Amino acid sequence: MTHEEYKQQLTAWAGLTEKRLAALCDEYLPQQSELGQAARYSLLGGGKRVRAVLTLAACQLAGADAADALDYACALEMLHCYSLIHDDMPCMDNDDFRRGRPSCHKQFGEATALLAADALVTAAFEVLAHAKCSAESRIEAVQLLAKGGGDRGMLYGQELDKHFETVRAGEAELLNLHAHKTGALIIAAVELGCAAAGVRPDTDTRKALVRYAAELGLVFQIVDDILDVTSTTEELGKPVGSDADNDKTTFITLYGLQGAHEEAERHNTAALAALDALGPRADFLRLMAAELLERKK
Amino acid sequence: MTHEEYKQQLTAWAGLTEKRLAALCDEYLPQQSELGQAARYSLLGGGKRVRAVLTLAACQLAGADAADALDYACALEMLHCYSLIHDDMPCMDNDDFRRGRPSCHKQFGEATALLAADALVTAAFEVLAHAKCSAESRIEAVQLLAKGGGDRGMLYGQELDKHFETVRAGEAELLNLHAHKTGALIIAAVELGCAAAGVRPDTDTRKALVRYAAELGLVFQIVDDILDVTSTTEELGKPVGSDADNDKTTFITLYGLQGAHEEAERHNTAALAALDALGPRADFLRLMAAELLERKK
Repeated sequence: MTHEEYKQQLTAWAGLTEKRLAALCDEYLPQQSELGQAARYSLLGGGKRVRAVLTLAACQLAGADAADALDYACALEMLHCYSLIHDDMPCMDNDDFRRGRPSCHKQFGEATALLAADALVTAAFEVLAHAKCSAESRIEAVQLLAKGGGDRGMLYGQELDKHFETVRAGEAELLNLHAHKTGALIIAAVELGCAAAGVRPDTDTRKALVRYAAELGLVFQIVDDILDVTSTTEELGKPVGSDADNDKTTFITLYGLQGAHEEAERHNTAALAALDALGPRADFLRLMAAELLERKK
Repeated sequence: MTHEEYKQQLTAWAGLTEKRLAALCDEYLPQQSELGQAARYSLLGGGKRVRAVLTLAACQLAGADAADALDYACALEMLHCYSLIHDDMPCMDNDDFRRGRPSCHKQFGEATALLAADALVTAAFEVLAHAKCSAESRIEAVQLLAKGGGDRGMLYGQELDKHFETVRAGEAELLNLHAHKTGALIIAAVELGCAAAGVRPDTDTRKALVRYAAELGLVFQIVDDILDVTSTTEELGKPVGSDADNDKTTFITLYGLQGAHEEAERHNTAALAALDALGPRADFLRLMAAELLERKK
């Protein structure tokens, strides 16, 4: 797969996701309601769709049509978006900007943002339950999304993130924080793709994808920390320098900028190694890892 | 069924729910996490378990063992509890007390309360997906809970509730508000019981239960409004007089106290009428309607 073919596939899958998300909003988040409008504002307001694309790519790699996993991919984006809205709220990170626009609570007020995010997480499970997959696959999808997004996954990561604002984190603690906060949903992404394709947890393919996703999540987070000190607010669409302002432990405070770069490369190498046995059908995921490593925003 | 038999059954089912909720917390809301502790504090801190009991009663009435619906009943209580935590937060109703104790955000802080409620709603769907019912039944349960708790159900009711704090509501608007805010989950309660028993939506039994639940939800809300002006904070375990303080439209402001009593009785009569064709097996639900009508807290 050439880089250009990768880019075309990426654009096609992100576009497919975007279009389906809009249709799902019409079905589950009525435009007449203010919550529906606020949810759409945040959900359809851009974003890289990394998680959705991972779900589609994993489904195709697992031997099915990528489109079979489209609703699972969209549900995951809905859950991710709800977590961003709550994360931006004044009692959490108190961020006024997201994806280059006012964050949901700045635009609609706190009460509406709170409930709009609640509507998104509820709709995410509703979308899974109505997807055109077998009942067994849909049940597995609900289990995966709840586990990845719940108190043993992403939400526990958010708790650790709050905790380590006041307590300094060591290396193991920072890795654990991000394995939950970011990693759990990245792993859920590839597992949802497998669930749509009917590939069971104990298969070599699925185990390899989970190992890849765990490493990719760390690459993603380390690069996030790097960009927070090297990029600009205009480029990122959200405030930079906030970690340093909050005196937070990051991969930069632990390793320094150069060390963080090396750490990201190390996890990228591990992500690629996880794909070794999968041959050329994993090329898309290899190129995606490279792109996430080198991203500037 | 005598009143004493009703009370025994009610106590048994509420106790069964309480015990199962504690076990589900151990599985899905780890005690080591602060979110887990906050979620337990709110979830296991009392409550009448009206919704859970309705699910169990509907399941038994529909011809199955009430215990078959126990996990569905617990999931519904988890979702209800999450909505109360978010509803109590400063950006919403800003209530400091719930069930006679400090509300979750007063006890654990806003960030933890926000995320603890998020953990509860996620766990609710996880519990449904892992219940010991057929995959088809569990999928239906996820659909029912998401519809009842989402932007076409309870959350839309919460939006209307916020909206009518600043705009005066008429009778039709108040009924619509409560049909969503309270009614949607009460209807979901009996439908979840039917889903556990394998009774389809187009059956006479299920249709009768849905009509009963819709009327019961209104009785419940009207009595809530009555108690807000006639009870004490000690008796209710939450502040009274808050509706008048907020200059809110209630069934009292619309009909007066005597008129509200009559309105509650009218909806109670309609709830009972819905059960007419179901014979003695609906006795528990008849006695429950009477108790909710006459409750003092």
